[in-house]
Amino acid sequence: MFDTLKWQETFLTLINQTRLPEELVHRECHTVEDVWDAIKRLEVRGAPAIGIAGAYGLFLAVKDCDDQQPLQEFWAFFDQKFDYLAQCRPTAVNLEWALKRCRSVVQNDSDISGIKTKLLEEAHKIHQEDQKLCERMGRYGAELLSEQATVLTHCNAGALATGGTGTALAVLYAAHEQGKQLKVYADETRPLLQGSRLTAWELNQAGIDVTVIADNMAAHVIRDKGVNAIIVGADRIAANGDVANKIGTYNLAVLAEKHRIPFYVAAPFSTFDINIASGQEIPIEERDATEVRLGFGKLTAPQEVKVYNPAFDVTPNDLVTALITDQGVLYPPFDVKIERLIQETTSV
Amino acid sequence: MFDTLKWQETFLTLINQTRLPEELVHRECHTVEDVWDAIKRLEVRGAPAIGIAGAYGLFLAVKDCDDQQPLQEFWAFFDQKFDYLAQCRPTAVNLEWALKRCRSVVQNDSDISGIKTKLLEEAHKIHQEDQKLCERMGRYGAELLSEQATVLTHCNAGALATGGTGTALAVLYAAHEQGKQLKVYADETRPLLQGSRLTAWELNQAGIDVTVIADNMAAHVIRDKGVNAIIVGADRIAANGDVANKIGTYNLAVLAEKHRIPFYVAAPFSTFDINIASGQEIPIEERDATEVRLGFGKLTAPQEVKVYNPAFDVTPNDLVTALITDQGVLYPPFDVKIERLIQETTSV
Repeated sequence: MFDTLKWQETFLTLINQTRLPEELVHRECHTVEDVWDAIKRLEVRGAPAIGIAGAYGLFLAVKDCDDQQPLQEFWAFFDQKFDYLAQCRPTAVNLEWALKRCRSVVQNDSDISGIKTKLLEEAHKIHQEDQKLCERMGRYGAELLSEQATVLTHCNAGALATGGTGTALAVLYAAHEQGKQLKVYADETRPLLQGSRLTAWELNQAGIDVTVIADNMAAHVIRDKGVNAIIVGADRIAANGDVANKIGTYNLAVLAEKHRIPFYVAAPFSTFDINIASGQEIPIEERDATEVRLGFGKLTAPQEVKVYNPAFDVTPNDLVTALITDQGVLYPPFDVKIERLIQETTSV
Repeated sequence: MFDTLKWQETFLTLINQTRLPEELVHRECHTVEDVWDAIKRLEVRGAPAIGIAGAYGLFLAVKDCDDQQPLQEFWAFFDQKFDYLAQCRPTAVNLEWALKRCRSVVQNDSDISGIKTKLLEEAHKIHQEDQKLCERMGRYGAELLSEQATVLTHCNAGALATGGTGTALAVLYAAHEQGKQLKVYADETRPLLQGSRLTAWELNQAGIDVTVIADNMAAHVIRDKGVNAIIVGADRIAANGDVANKIGTYNLAVLAEKHRIPFYVAAPFSTFDINIASGQEIPIEERDATEVRLGFGKLTAPQEVKVYNPAFDVTPNDLVTALITDQGVLYPPFDVKIERLIQETTSV
């Protein structure tokens, strides 16, 4: 499989996702400014992938520091670069989480050379751990699919969004490796088309049979093409199992219920937010109207007409068949299972 | 209001809808080939508008025929042009209906000059009748909306789709004229964006409060923005009330059922096809993959990945709350009501 992110001894390379599917271009990040810019421009996206990029970015920020400089001077510089990175995309929780984790392993140290070594090691750890989380979700989720499965997915919850094989798509990769016959429909996912640009690209790279559809075709395809299951990722899951994910996810959950097919959500433990009781408390980010009105540089809605562009929606837990996590598959009642999952994860 | 179609003594002009909302351009159709091309390229679209264009097209096909030629020769030519036009787009029944109606008024005639006159008169009649049908649908449908209504619509079933004020949108225009406070959400309607390009444009022209959303936002908007009703048009309605309409319509019908709001379909009698028992018999036009893959003039899905692009879907009659017709509002059981509607219409 391709490397969404790869450490090359002294610098980071990442796939520039804004250029897909037209061309596969890798960007080299030699400085923290390069990393910041790549995240800002959405050249790297997907919460786990942004976290990993941020961790490597923090190392790049300090790697050329003078090891002999006064410690106070070093930490002032470190803090400045830390904030700079953390504020790049303030809504992406994983970025801050990864940066804080890196800081925590060096904060009591006084040897600058040793700090550098530890920061790079921690970035590698975060990257490798994410690969394992993806593998586990894939393995648990693949058991839910039959030998011949027709699956619908939305947005990109794949290798391009993580340090491994993805969340929802990890399930498909694992099932494919087990020899299961998959037919996948990928919603194009307006307005930014992560489904047609990214999901279709990476599934096709892996030799998985994938067909792109416009979002509004999902109901027709589910009914007339015999879709067996819907699998999506998640941006945040509340304590009661309500799921915030890319806009359009709730629509699919309603369609799954109507057509009596399972609706699966794949997400690692870090996506669960037990401080939030239900989906109603999750703020819905509204993005710029031009994403809808000027999709790809052409005026597709009158300039003077309003556009509503929420980036996410909330799917109530009663429409979710199961949550595929790195610790196993959770079935209702979700509140109890989620509490146990978080307790077990944090006690490890 | 603007003229979607207008007869200009010797030729037809139509708004080239592929250029909206960027610019309001009229196309002149001087020949039957011009009309065929305009229909094929979707410069004119919407079942009733296609019917009207087809009727004028049939006149344009014969208007320069030699009045003195052998009658057999004339009819052979006529039949050829008739089939040519009828096969231009397969799903909408109105095109075939309009062409057959024109043929029926001349089929026993032997004076070519008189035939030409009658064909043009019949095209005018179909055009004028359509205006009245729209008005009537609007009047009947407006009664279904409350004084303050939030309505979702899909594709363009408006003035741009008919010879009058539309089918679904005629209802909104009538309610607006009655002083009802409307808030309308228009699905952008991928892949060809008739909702954001056309519906938003024409409702905004009329001073109606309209907001464009991407298709996958409908479920979220229905639930969180308090949509009271969904109104769409139809391309063909079977004898049992199953509705073929723009892809995405079935999705909305499922959402209406889930959220317990009415799902209305507005269509004149000519959209009903009692020769077709149920929606399963309606042919679904599949269009070119490039509409999805290269929708914005930019590659949005990998060239080597499959795209499925059905232009229509079928909504089963049990999801339809009522059919808004030019003869009144029909409620279930639809089969009996549709039979009566057609009998009364054809006996006039």
